[in-house]
Formats: sequence, structure tokens, C-alpha cells
Amino acid sequence: MKNDLFLRALKGETVERPPVWMMRQAGRFLPEFMEIREKYDFFTRCRTPELASEITVQPIRRFGMDAAILFSDILVIPQAMNIEVQMKPNFGPYLPNPVRDQKGVDSVVVPDVNEELDYVMNAIKATKEMLNDEIPLIGFAGSPWTILCYVVQGQGSKTFDKAKEFCFTNPVSAHTLLQKITDTTIAYLKAKVEAGVDVVQVFDSWGGMLSPVDYREFSWKYIDQIIEALKEMVPVIVFAKGCWYALEEMSNSNASALGVDWTVTPRTARYLTKNRLTLQGNFDPARLLSPPSQIKEMVTQMINEFGKDRYIVNLGHGILPNVPLDNARAFIDAVKEYKK
Amino acid sequence: MKNDLFLRALKGETVERPPVWMMRQAGRFLPEFMEIREKYDFFTRCRTPELASEITVQPIRRFGMDAAILFSDILVIPQAMNIEVQMKPNFGPYLPNPVRDQKGVDSVVVPDVNEELDYVMNAIKATKEMLNDEIPLIGFAGSPWTILCYVVQGQGSKTFDKAKEFCFTNPVSAHTLLQKITDTTIAYLKAKVEAGVDVVQVFDSWGGMLSPVDYREFSWKYIDQIIEALKEMVPVIVFAKGCWYALEEMSNSNASALGVDWTVTPRTARYLTKNRLTLQGNFDPARLLSPPSQIKEMVTQMINEFGKDRYIVNLGHGILPNVPLDNARAFIDAVKEYKK
Repeated sequence: MKNDLFLRALKGETVERPPVWMMRQAGRFLPEFMEIREKYDFFTRCRTPELASEITVQPIRRFGMDAAILFSDILVIPQAMNIEVQMKPNFGPYLPNPVRDQKGVDSVVVPDVNEELDYVMNAIKATKEMLNDEIPLIGFAGSPWTILCYVVQGQGSKTFDKAKEFCFTNPVSAHTLLQKITDTTIAYLKAKVEAGVDVVQVFDSWGGMLSPVDYREFSWKYIDQIIEALKEMVPVIVFAKGCWYALEEMSNSNASALGVDWTVTPRTARYLTKNRLTLQGNFDPARLLSPPSQIKEMVTQMINEFGKDRYIVNLGHGILPNVPLDNARAFIDAVKEYKK
Repeated sequence: MKNDLFLRALKGETVERPPVWMMRQAGRFLPEFMEIREKYDFFTRCRTPELASEITVQPIRRFGMDAAILFSDILVIPQAMNIEVQMKPNFGPYLPNPVRDQKGVDSVVVPDVNEELDYVMNAIKATKEMLNDEIPLIGFAGSPWTILCYVVQGQGSKTFDKAKEFCFTNPVSAHTLLQKITDTTIAYLKAKVEAGVDVVQVFDSWGGMLSPVDYREFSWKYIDQIIEALKEMVPVIVFAKGCWYALEEMSNSNASALGVDWTVTPRTARYLTKNRLTLQGNFDPARLLSPPSQIKEMVTQMINEFGKDRYIVNLGHGILPNVPLDNARAFIDAVKEYKK
């Protein structure tokens, strides 16, 4: 790997500056992506290796991040598990037949991922060729709890009350469903590694909806299975948004890095994780709407507070679609120009 | 006051059991409320003292909570400030002319609250008569930051990106707007106290969207002004959802109590607030969908963990509309039956 800064930071090695990438850097805010989006619908972009790989490398070409992340979606997993998923413009994901009972759970299959998700593996191979070993490629999956949220709720939600009601009134069925999702996700991430990804990240977007006790039971237990299954193959990053309360427990796992959101100060994040592993984050995505000079100052301060080692500069959640290019550039440049 | 348990807990006195009420107990889940909702639209219910007071006492009649909270809405404040607010069914608040620049801020007025919001004061008087000094009445307001979120975004949002962009790119105008909202809110809450409310609560529903640094600048600074202006008149409760990171700073204020959400364990909440003041919360509203016997066990455990003194039993956010009556009753009964 010509630029191995990201892999070295994940191993905890001393680096000259921290690596940088941005969650959702592929397929959200670049004008060259908008052009592709006008021509092809969401799942066509995911399923066509030439499109997915092109979208993946677009931000690298423009800004030169230290890692690429494959353009895809966490909901390809329920799709492969025999659950219909639509992506409605101006609405988001829509699952017309949500799972709400044991009969629904029974109808969910654990698929052969190489067959059902071969298009992802082909996109990885195409991307690896385009990247030409310049930088590492990240593959990702949603956490089982976050996937359950969509599968049961049937759409996005402020409270995911139907998903929680299902877990709280029907825990046996919920755990059966979570285990099916976990088994599929482990097979999927292993296949991704075999296809070429260098690192995997698990996104627990909705873990922060749960209490600490419920998080342990319905989310962390399954994420930890994924870490244990993958840890010998590649570094595993876990980003559990809103889960500051679980950072200490998560830091005892075999994850290589934990993502943190912007409600956690660098100092608190280091304190809660006892300096045991690499941290990733945590610039408020909306702060990329500040003037570029201010962004640069804030990024430098953030690096100083996290420390340049055992640290990956990132946002605290996905980049917003309306971020000006100069502002995204200021974020990346501030890291590259960083001198302690 | 015949039942002064709530007031005594706010003063930090030793009590035989903690008091209990539920955020959003009025006007959300009761069948007798649904009947009123079918006949009158949202702002008619707010503006008609007979309706607002009836809705306020409905949950007390059925369950006998230790405090009533006036049925109203945080968005009556921007309405009174010359900003149009509509409540769209199945959509939520909609402000057709959001404030996005200094010109918009200039057009916002600080009204005479007794004139513009006299219907609230009349509802308080009507409610106090109905309550007949049985239990205290809480009046509430949104935090200035939370009101700004709606006033600038124009509707609910997952990220309130437009509100944040306004603050981050135009901080002078944002602070002018926040101060206007604060001045109005202080006058409003003082008028409410004069009309008869015994306690006030400030809801910072969207504080948790901000980083700790931005929270201090754009939210806490103004909440603290409200506390200082009201503290001699009545106890002030502040509920800042998602703001665990600010609990320590907030506990140094003159608030009588702080609300906490269910992501904070009782132990962490006590640790962060250094046992300085009363805490209120923090049952996951979705946990009211669990079976009643389990609810009772969880409530008892929650009281044991917070401790019965300096504690007000509540949810960690508003009650969900689909909670069965028996489950709400189990929540209240578990507190009333509590024995250490």
C-alpha cells in the first residue's frame, strides 16, 4: 500500500499526521456524483460495479483522502435476506412488508452472500483495480440492531417505536431475527474481505435510541460477534452513533477503532476508552458549513485534543449533501497540513 | 397544596416516595383526549381555555399523577413573535416563512405576552380552579435554541442543518434572534407564574444536536438567563434531551431539577450532577410498550438506582401515542406502591 497511514493508525503506530476520510464521502455531495445520480436510480448505482467503483473513487480523485469507502448501502443486507427494500426519493428507505411477528422472522432467509451480493464483490474488485494500491478500501455493514430497525419499522423514524415494541414484547423472535442478520453480515463482510477490502466498518446508526441495558442486549452483543468473526482477517471499526454510554464497554472488545460523534469531547472519548484503541471522528457535519478558515482552525484543534496518534480524522456522522466543495477541501487540507 | 410531594422533591426534602408525572401526559395518548382532538384542531385546543384545562386534568383524573402540566405547545412563542406556525396533520409543525437572514431576524418582534398569549394565562386560571390545590401545575416553554431550530428550519428535521448553518455562518444574527426569543420566553414564563403555575420546565428538545462547545454558546447561555430570571419566583426544571455532556455544567446552575433521558444511567446522572440537585426521568418511553408486570419491576429498579429522594419519576421523553392505558397505569402505580 503506497499510503498506509490509515492502516498504521488502526494498528496504533506512531504517524507523522493522522489519516483522514469522511463518512458518506462517496455518493452524496460531489457534483460528479450528482451527474451519475441523474442517470441511474439508487439500486442501479449499487448493483453496477462500474458505477459503484466510479462513485467510490470520485472523492479520492478530487480531495485525496487516506482511505476510500465502497459506495453501497446497509440495506442490501435485508434485500438479500428476502425482504423487499425500496428507496423512495425525498422519503428514504421503504420496506412494504415489515417483519412484525415470528411468522415474519421465519420467512427471513440467511442467504448465500456470494450469490445474492455478487455485485458488491464485483464492485470491490473493480474499485481495487482503480485504486491501484494507492490507499486502503473500507467495506461496511449496518449493525444488526440498525438493520432490524428498518426491517421492523419499515421506514426511517424519529423513535423507531415499532422496532422497539417488537424487541420489548417479543424478545425471542427479535433475537432470532438479530442472529439471522448477524450470520448474514458476518458472511457478507468475510466475502468482502476475500474480494479485497482492507478494513471493515460497522455502522450502528440507531444504537443511541436504546438505553445502556437494552443496547447491550439488542445491539452490542451482535456487533461483538461480528468483531470476533472478522478480527483475524482485517481491522474492524465500530461507529455507534449516540452510544457514548457504551464506549467503555466497546473499548474492551477486539475492535481496532471506535467512531465517536461530536457530542463527545476528545478528552471524554479518550477517558472512556482508557486510551486502549484508535478513535475516529468527530467533527459535527454541520460545522462543515462554517467558513473554510474556521473549519481549518477547528480541525487543527480537534487533532490537538485527540492527539495525532491512535486517531483517524473524520466527521461525527455522514457528510451533508449541501456542503460546499471548498469547505470539504478545507477539512481534508487542514489534516494534511497538520504539524504538531 | 394537598399533595406537595412534587414541590418537596424539588426542594430536596426527604419524602416517603418520589413524585411521578409523565412528559406529554396531557394531549397525546388518552381516549378522552382523542375525542376532543376529533372535534377541534390543534391551535383551537391550545387557544380555548375550557379545552386546554380539560385536556390538562384528564390524565390526573384517570391516573392521579403528582403534578399536572398545562396542555399547550412550545411553538405558541414564535406565533406570538409574528412568525406564522401551522400544525399539519401527519407532518408536524410547518413555518411557511422561516427566518434565514438578518432581515428576517429584524421582522421578529418581542411581543406583549399578556396580550398575545392571554389565552394561555386564561387556561392556567381555569386549570388551577379545576385542580383545586390538589397538586401543583407545571408551565413550560421550549429552550431558545429549540425554538430557533423550528423558526429557521421551518419544520422538523433529523439534523436541523439549516438552523445550524444559520448559527455557524451568521452568528451575530443568530444571537440576536436567540436573545429575542429569550426575552419573550422570560416574560412569558413570568406571566404564567403570575397566572398561577407552581413550577416551570424548559424543554431543550434539540440541544443534543450540538457539540458541547456549541451547546454552551447557542443553547445553555440562554437557558441560564431564563433560570436566573425565574429562580426567585418558582422552581425551574430544565430537560435538555441528549445533553448528557452538559449535565455537569447545568448542575452548577440555579435550576431546581434537571431532566435526563434514558441513555444516562441513574448512577452516571448522579455522578455528573454531583448530587447537587433533583433529577427527573428517565424511563425509555418505548419501554412503556413492555408488559405491565415488567414495567413495574423496571420502575422499582429505576427508583432504587436514582434513590427515592431528590428524584422525580418520569419518562426520558414524551409518552408515545400508542401506549396502552394499562401500561401507563402500571408506571404510575409502581411509584405509588414503592417501598424502599
